[in-house]
Amino acid sequence: MRRRGDTVFFDEPVWVESCAAVGGKKEGEGPLGARFDEIGPDNRFGQKTWEKAEKRMAELACTHALSKADVSPAAVTCALGGDLLNQCISSAFAMRGLGVPYLGLYGACSTMAEGLLLGAALISGGFADRTLCLASSHFCSAERQYRYPLEYGGQRPPSAQWTATACGAVLLRREKTKIAVTAATAGRIYDPGVTDSANMGAAMAQSAYETLRIYFRDSGTSPGDYDLILTGDLATVGHGLVRQLFAADGRPLGENYRDCGMLLYGPEQDVHAGASGCGCSAAVLCADVLPALAAGRLKTVLFCGTGALMSPTSANQGESIPGICHLVRLEGGR
Amino acid sequence: MRRRGDTVFFDEPVWVESCAAVGGKKEGEGPLGARFDEIGPDNRFGQKTWEKAEKRMAELACTHALSKADVSPAAVTCALGGDLLNQCISSAFAMRGLGVPYLGLYGACSTMAEGLLLGAALISGGFADRTLCLASSHFCSAERQYRYPLEYGGQRPPSAQWTATACGAVLLRREKTKIAVTAATAGRIYDPGVTDSANMGAAMAQSAYETLRIYFRDSGTSPGDYDLILTGDLATVGHGLVRQLFAADGRPLGENYRDCGMLLYGPEQDVHAGASGCGCSAAVLCADVLPALAAGRLKTVLFCGTGALMSPTSANQGESIPGICHLVRLEGGR
Repeated sequence: MRRRGDTVFFDEPVWVESCAAVGGKKEGEGPLGARFDEIGPDNRFGQKTWEKAEKRMAELACTHALSKADVSPAAVTCALGGDLLNQCISSAFAMRGLGVPYLGLYGACSTMAEGLLLGAALISGGFADRTLCLASSHFCSAERQYRYPLEYGGQRPPSAQWTATACGAVLLRREKTKIAVTAATAGRIYDPGVTDSANMGAAMAQSAYETLRIYFRDSGTSPGDYDLILTGDLATVGHGLVRQLFAADGRPLGENYRDCGMLLYGPEQDVHAGASGCGCSAAVLCADVLPALAAGRLKTVLFCGTGALMSPTSANQGESIPGICHLVRLEGGR
Repeated sequence: MRRRGDTVFFDEPVWVESCAAVGGKKEGEGPLGARFDEIGPDNRFGQKTWEKAEKRMAELACTHALSKADVSPAAVTCALGGDLLNQCISSAFAMRGLGVPYLGLYGACSTMAEGLLLGAALISGGFADRTLCLASSHFCSAERQYRYPLEYGGQRPPSAQWTATACGAVLLRREKTKIAVTAATAGRIYDPGVTDSANMGAAMAQSAYETLRIYFRDSGTSPGDYDLILTGDLATVGHGLVRQLFAADGRPLGENYRDCGMLLYGPEQDVHAGASGCGCSAAVLCADVLPALAAGRLKTVLFCGTGALMSPTSANQGESIPGICHLVRLEGGR
């Protein structure tokens, strides 16, 4: 590992061994639906509550990732995961059954990027041979926790995003595969003062901009050097703001800048600004981006997980919404 | 780093550069009160809400740890921290002001041990030069989130614990100091089926036992080899259960086995089974154990952070309480 500024370069890369994405009914009907490893027919995954359904989805994603690599849980040094639920219960209860040493994370919707960054750093540094990185969210468990019970039928403004019912799991290992993790930048918290919790994209855009700016500085590269620059879940509002911030720097992001929140659902699915939730970037990564890297359709990707580190309590107490963004560089077709 | 089983041995140790503990009024009146770096006169720390008070306490602990080492935030590669509040807002909002790359954790009351494990692994592996590890809790913010509003005056059974109003912060670095981090074991989740959320000690005892058992196996050592074996916040009930589990193995823990939950408050302070909360083990470590290691009064300590990975939602849905324990070996008087 070699550090420059806030960025670490894995001169000996860490490798993606397998990945899996599990989603709900709406996610199955979206443009990436056919690429999920499993789609639940009714968002309940055979469980009695939304929280247990989210836990079940996380268990399924881990099981798919492990079985695709033909790896037993005993061969995983540690799992790194989290979710949006209070006290991260869906990850913890999923891990209860798996029996792998578990390091719980809370990075809001940046959790998958945080997990990949830590998982790669732990392997590269010699702490671990194999890590399992996990992030999930569920529309119904998130709505009742963050907003209103579904039965209330609350209206959503155009800037609101739709929490994805989805989970992604990624196995990282030391031995070569087709996809390398070659660099990572841990993000700082930025808070542009947005207090509207129905406008998360605006709250997180600055953190995505700052982490990307720092990464370009540290790596001596520019936006044109990448096949895909992919932010987590800024959706249309935040995606437009990041474009504006780079354009104002005289360094416009090209067509290769996309956002997971704009890829998960189609325009006819009525999700307003787009998708959000830990599961959004995790599932887009695992269903679409990693397979494209493995196949060589993508060569170099910056995966930038974005998170809004607020809670209903902080919002009710008048606090603005702190944003964070962690970046991981992925290289494919090796 | 050298791995055996679930345990990593830092053959080139990582070092504790400084630490700080900040506590509330009750903690100031306890047996460790005089050893805190700062005691708030009224648990509010000048803030309007309990959640903001907890955030302020975390800021103060970080500031004390940095200033005791004469280190600027810019010299910290990353901070690793968490707390018990929904979406870990006290840590996130404290980090917003500090401006250090931030990796949020959720390990419930095991957070300080999880942070030390990850912080040491990241330094040992070359990812970081200096990490700041942080964990906090606040009695009043925890009561209203997990139990009842304070005004309700709910009664507490004898097995209940008192969430500490406290925060600990530890700076780790690569260069030698008087205190070394020499090994760490990441814990698995164990769930003995306890459903009484007023009996966390019983829920977490098995995880402490299992992690210690695995560590003794991996290290080829036994309880008598340590000046102090310190669990996080099992309090009297859980502490007794861990003793029983080891006694049943024919390997009794001696007088050197203590629990942070039994050290923070005096018998006259009416906390029933003892203390709990992320801040409990973090503050006992920073106020008492690390200074004793630096002074050479302790030579070898196993610090075993314990966490109950439940939420009010999981409890209301009939789930039992999963426990986790992460272990860090500390050696002093170098």
